Amino acid sequence: MTIFVVTLQCLDRPGIVLAASTAIVSVDGNILENDQFTDPVTSQFCMRTRFESATTDLDGVHGVLTAALVSFEPVLTVRREDVQRRALVMVSQYDHCLAELLYRRDSGDLPLDVVAVVSNHDTCAPLARRHNVPYFEIPVTPSTKNAAENDLRGLLTRFDVDFVVLARYMQVLSGKLCRDLAGRAVNIHHSFLPGFKGARPYHQAYQRGVKLIGATAHFVTAELDEGPIIDQDVVRVSHARRPSDMVSLGRDVERTVLARAVRLLAEDRVALVGHRTIIFSQ
Amino acid sequence: MTIFVVTLQCLDRPGIVLAASTAIVSVDGNILENDQFTDPVTSQFCMRTRFESATTDLDGVHGVLTAALVSFEPVLTVRREDVQRRALVMVSQYDHCLAELLYRRDSGDLPLDVVAVVSNHDTCAPLARRHNVPYFEIPVTPSTKNAAENDLRGLLTRFDVDFVVLARYMQVLSGKLCRDLAGRAVNIHHSFLPGFKGARPYHQAYQRGVKLIGATAHFVTAELDEGPIIDQDVVRVSHARRPSDMVSLGRDVERTVLARAVRLLAEDRVALVGHRTIIFSQ
Amino acid sequence: MTIFVVTLQCLDRPGIVLAASTAIVSVDGNILENDQFTDPVTSQFCMRTRFESATTDLDGVHGVLTAALVSFEPVLTVRREDVQRRALVMVSQYDHCLAELLYRRDSGDLPLDVVAVVSNHDTCAPLARRHNVPYFEIPVTPSTKNAAENDLRGLLTRFDVDFVVLARYMQVLSGKLCRDLAGRAVNIHHSFLPGFKGARPYHQAYQRGVKLIGATAHFVTAELDEGPIIDQDVVRVSHARRPSDMVSLGRDVERTVLARAVRLLAEDRVALVGHRTIIFSQ
Amino acid sequence: MTIFVVTLQCLDRPGIVLAASTAIVSVDGNILENDQFTDPVTSQFCMRTRFESATTDLDGVHGVLTAALVSFEPVLTVRREDVQRRALVMVSQYDHCLAELLYRRDSGDLPLDVVAVVSNHDTCAPLARRHNVPYFEIPVTPSTKNAAENDLRGLLTRFDVDFVVLARYMQVLSGKLCRDLAGRAVNIHHSFLPGFKGARPYHQAYQRGVKLIGATAHFVTAELDEGPIIDQDVVRVSHARRPSDMVSLGRDVERTVLARAVRLLAEDRVALVGHRTIIFSQ
Repeated sequence: MTIFVVTLQCLDRPGIVLAASTAIVSVDGNILENDQFTDPVTSQFCMRTRFESATTDLDGVHGVLTAALVSFEPVLTVRREDVQRRALVMVSQYDHCLAELLYRRDSGDLPLDVVAVVSNHDTCAPLARRHNVPYFEIPVTPSTKNAAENDLRGLLTRFDVDFVVLARYMQVLSGKLCRDLAGRAVNIHHSFLPGFKGARPYHQAYQRGVKLIGATAHFVTAELDEGPIIDQDVVRVSHARRPSDMVSLGRDVERTVLARAVRLLAEDRVALVGHRTIIFSQ
Repeated sequence: MTIFVVTLQCLDRPGIVLAASTAIVSVDGNILENDQFTDPVTSQFCMRTRFESATTDLDGVHGVLTAALVSFEPVLTVRREDVQRRALVMVSQYDHCLAELLYRRDSGDLPLDVVAVVSNHDTCAPLARRHNVPYFEIPVTPSTKNAAENDLRGLLTRFDVDFVVLARYMQVLSGKLCRDLAGRAVNIHHSFLPGFKGARPYHQAYQRGVKLIGATAHFVTAELDEGPIIDQDVVRVSHARRPSDMVSLGRDVERTVLARAVRLLAEDRVALVGHRTIIFSQ
Repeated sequence: MTIFVVTLQCLDRPGIVLAASTAIVSVDGNILENDQFTDPVTSQFCMRTRFESATTDLDGVHGVLTAALVSFEPVLTVRREDVQRRALVMVSQYDHCLAELLYRRDSGDLPLDVVAVVSNHDTCAPLARRHNVPYFEIPVTPSTKNAAENDLRGLLTRFDVDFVVLARYMQVLSGKLCRDLAGRAVNIHHSFLPGFKGARPYHQAYQRGVKLIGATAHFVTAELDEGPIIDQDVVRVSHARRPSDMVSLGRDVERTVLARAVRLLAEDRVALVGHRTIIFSQ
Repeated sequence: MTIFVVTLQCLDRPGIVLAASTAIVSVDGNILENDQFTDPVTSQFCMRTRFESATTDLDGVHGVLTAALVSFEPVLTVRREDVQRRALVMVSQYDHCLAELLYRRDSGDLPLDVVAVVSNHDTCAPLARRHNVPYFEIPVTPSTKNAAENDLRGLLTRFDVDFVVLARYMQVLSGKLCRDLAGRAVNIHHSFLPGFKGARPYHQAYQRGVKLIGATAHFVTAELDEGPIIDQDVVRVSHARRPSDMVSLGRDVERTVLARAVRLLAEDRVALVGHRTIIFSQ
């Protein structure tokens, strides 16, 4: 049996589930998992369905679903679960997030094809090499920023990338690139947003004397640290923790939160409605 | 518009969702929420659906759904969301769980009709009175246990009770009554089961030196502390916490966990498959 | 045996602990609990010590400690543990935080003497009455704000109040009163500060799409929502939670966090160094 | 300045803190951190003190403290903080706990000298090699168990090991070796003890239908899974998680909990009183 993963988004109207389930039955599909949500503000209907079928014909399944749902004008994706999403990971000098993603991919926790690592430094090259992932160093200076983004765009095409993961990549992408990657690029910010936007959030957190610090995985948008949030978490810090301790504790939260968010993306569990994410996770 | 809540359980086969969604469309229903799960061990399919419709006719809706699904031989429940479930709460002398349930009912957090409080003591009578809930004192001694259970059964009938909440009720129900209330009685145990079954769990926890203590809300079964678990939670305790401190910290976990479990029941979000619960909670 | 609680703060220098422990031995004291911390930024040394002694003479103990430590020019407090701190609680119309404080006081969890409740409404009067706490309604309008604060100051003197608890009191205190109450007034803010300062934080949180919401207990300062933080906590919210659900979930965090912070104050476990709190809690 | 870490344990009597602080002042020490606890059941007094001094003379400091405290008959340890504790790590085939410890050591989070890795398999040899830690494969069969333990004892002596970390080592140590390593060997058990002792705890957890799974780091004793607990934590699991998912989620808790426990040991923050641990952690 082949497992198919379907996501669907459209304006809510009676009959969507009926149309979708009719189509699934007609390709001899049996639903394994189904999640749906209607956003009360925008009336957007979002659905994620996993079903198994004796067929292996992705195009056929896609055609049947499209035909059945055409009147709802949905945004529809269908993929075979055994064909993993393709991600390009960007890092600078900190390696903890990249190490976590590669560790989880290798241990089978993260069903994702990490096709390339891009960095503005060479620090993480040995780590990527150990995990047999191609590594591309693309230095960025104010004068080379445009050329660097062109190189990156070239790699996105060459590796047929589904999404980009900024795993503590310390350069700001241009507004143009952010817009072109809308909904396809995730960043880990080392604070519990919206608190402590911008630089040196752990030092800001120390100054403010917060009792919990956190990390936020969010979609990249042209406005820095303002993109739709995918996941967040926090960890308790006592008064005795100095900024350097917070950096160390924060690393653990960053890698956990980013790994969770990337897994959600890898499994098509994130829908985007306006500025808010819908997370399909049982 | 009237909101209906449907729960359904049957052996998994292709076409259930199609049949259910056809029926819902035929009563002009629009699905607001839908959750489903197929247990991989037993192949039981469980579903909970909330939909709104212009009709107010519960019997009509029930009939349409029953007819549409009859070939799957499901266990099916349908109710109007504005008609709350009816619960009878049992307590002994500790009042914190009862106080929490009544506080949440009054503040609108808990959509539940608490129809009566039963106790083997009179301690909590003023609390129940303050919240305008009828209070019945039914003392229990070894010789009166049978009569006491008969009195209780009388109240269950008289108040048309959907489920029973043991909110730190310190008497053990008879095996017969446990079986008759199967799936309809919830208990709060003051430990993180399966650790520390039986009496004085906080003292057991202190002896063992655990670093987290917890509470467990579970369905009542004839085997003490072995019923299917609905919810659990824990709280950190340091070495400096003595058994009396743990009792105090534990009270907070008990009332939180029981309140969550009762809310899940009040909203028909708990399915029972074998010895495990399926929780439909977005 | 009588238990004494000592707090001490001064510039760090070798010999403080020696001086304090010499003094405690000289009053036949045996230390039960001792916590200390030196702030690396300001070099402030903070200590909290609980010891028991056969003496009951508070003035005598205070004198011996003062004499032993005079060369360190400390801020020193000494009290008998059996003489509870005196708190005045302020509320508006939401009752959940007040209810929690009074519940915990009555159940023995909160060693605090709640001497009065002040409100700009009469909503919570029955709750206070049920717990036998004097209730004073002091309405506040722009034109009566000065007079209202004078009335409040009168009550603070009359009841010999140690600290003020703003338990969802929806009026802003004047800058003058905030300064006069510095380090003696605690507020619960219904967000995880510094995120979502100001009004309607749950609606702000919904708009931003955060995955955790929180509450913050902090000392009151003239700058709104900027006071030193005593405790914070968060709870997970899914995309399905609307602002009204967040208000309900948030209530639980608010009452938990405020109750914890007030208990820390009641037990002299909070020191204030610059804008940050030191929490002595084993 | 040199930093010294002192731990002390003895029967509680007035004057211990005075004696210790007198000794510290006499070696020109300034206390940076001090934690103490008196166990109410056994009257054992435990203390951990970190102080800095211009001296570098460990033997001198040790002598002064010993002389000052001799009348209390304490168990006393003194070490220079810059001389790290020496640990030998044992693994079988799962590498996640070892990888976590080595990652943290390399990133500076774990102030510990990992002097050797011992395994009954060769699976983790490349991981150890990458981190430049000597790796010893000591296969264990029923007939070679004695010889294997002798080999291990040889390594403990040769590397001057302070403590042994069983990082998912799947062999049971002999009662004799457990006793000889009392208080110096830590194990990670993949359940929230005392729940699910013994083999295949995640499968037990699935059968029982628990809503949280956990991990426990504990001292090794001759009674399996009964040693004093150092740290524990849990993670929420839904009904949809199968045993294999729990294994994967559990791995994250195991490595986090073991890393925290080992760090506590590396920093001399764990005291053992009877069957319970005292954790000095601000």
